[in-house]
Amino acid sequence: MTKRVDNQILSPTSRTKVARGNRAWADRAELYQLLDHAVYCHLAVVVDGLPLAVPTIFAYDQSGPDNGGTLYLHGSVAARSIASAPEQDVLVTVTLLDGLVLARAAFHHSMNYRSAVIIGRPRLVVDDEEREIALKLIVDQLIPGRTQYLRAHSRKELAATSVLALPLLEASVKMRQGGPQDDSGDVREGGVWAGVLPVSLRVGKPIASVDLEAGVEVPSHVRQLVRAQCVTDHNK
Amino acid sequence: MTKRVDNQILSPTSRTKVARGNRAWADRAELYQLLDHAVYCHLAVVVDGLPLAVPTIFAYDQSGPDNGGTLYLHGSVAARSIASAPEQDVLVTVTLLDGLVLARAAFHHSMNYRSAVIIGRPRLVVDDEEREIALKLIVDQLIPGRTQYLRAHSRKELAATSVLALPLLEASVKMRQGGPQDDSGDVREGGVWAGVLPVSLRVGKPIASVDLEAGVEVPSHVRQLVRAQCVTDHNK
Repeated sequence: MTKRVDNQILSPTSRTKVARGNRAWADRAELYQLLDHAVYCHLAVVVDGLPLAVPTIFAYDQSGPDNGGTLYLHGSVAARSIASAPEQDVLVTVTLLDGLVLARAAFHHSMNYRSAVIIGRPRLVVDDEEREIALKLIVDQLIPGRTQYLRAHSRKELAATSVLALPLLEASVKMRQGGPQDDSGDVREGGVWAGVLPVSLRVGKPIASVDLEAGVEVPSHVRQLVRAQCVTDHNK
Repeated sequence: MTKRVDNQILSPTSRTKVARGNRAWADRAELYQLLDHAVYCHLAVVVDGLPLAVPTIFAYDQSGPDNGGTLYLHGSVAARSIASAPEQDVLVTVTLLDGLVLARAAFHHSMNYRSAVIIGRPRLVVDDEEREIALKLIVDQLIPGRTQYLRAHSRKELAATSVLALPLLEASVKMRQGGPQDDSGDVREGGVWAGVLPVSLRVGKPIASVDLEAGVEVPSHVRQLVRAQCVTDHNK
């Protein structure tokens, strides 16, 4: 992961502009921070006229050829969602749930969250070097520091995997934070507990593979993630 | 929430049939269980030729008029994704992340997850009684037991909210569990820690709203969710 560039204002188009409310942040640094904390995204793509939303892991590279960097996705060469993506504009959404918002009225119940939407026409990565870099970034997005501990990809493994590159150009970030926004009448009425239940994606204790030989210690990059406890808050 | 019906086999069509691998379960009980544990879903819909994937909360009712029950979604009457949904076949995906799977090779890294896909043409709910029931179910899906603690919806609140009903007919469930599946050569080679990092969505301590008057205790339905600690594991 390269050093952070200075804040750049995102330039959402009419397609990424948040239509309602004031929950949008037009700040590239916010986008990068959200991508740092997320574990996976949903790739939305139309296949045979039907919209699919496929959960998938990802990575991004701020030093990509396009302004603002590149989002990388991968999948089996047999996956329909990946194969059809370069022929259309796709949407990638990243959602982090931060809390359940409990209001005095059912109507004002809400969620605290951070979410990003990225739209664009993905490029199928054909250059072997870029493919290998992207696949390493994707594993390190999941478990920072993992790939330098592992052997390199084999040719056969690289051949079985498609990689997509999506420019981080047309994007928007949306979030909600804070407590419930109740009607003043309900607040005056009183007697109802209102507030926030924070939620986060937590990491439990590592479970060694059943075929792991004796004497192999849990490496520091894994211990670090477990110590951080929270996937969605770990810093890179 | 009504009592569970006996297991019913899902009948996925060619659109919901899982194309690759052996990670599909064709069991209606599995689908209900996944829906019970999930906090939110993604609604995939095509708007102006572009696929959207919108994170949104939901509920389901097993006693719905269609075989197998009904999935309810809601949103502002101004939301494009909700407004355009009844004119097309949409896809709803529910994804629960259960673990990061760390293999000896980057290629075999994976996620443990449970996910469901439901496809169909949603119906805009116009009956006020069904709309109110659906909105209560949606709040109780988030925080079981919440709505009986709250006042009823006002007419104005009901008028500001659109409710969609999607039959739980065309659906599939997919999951991955267990440790990494490494190549035997990498296992023999040894020296690399492989295993699973369990992850789950955890609930933290309740944070009272800044405008909450003194003396209002945290109600039992909230204490119960906090005691369970884990959103994705809470039982109903």
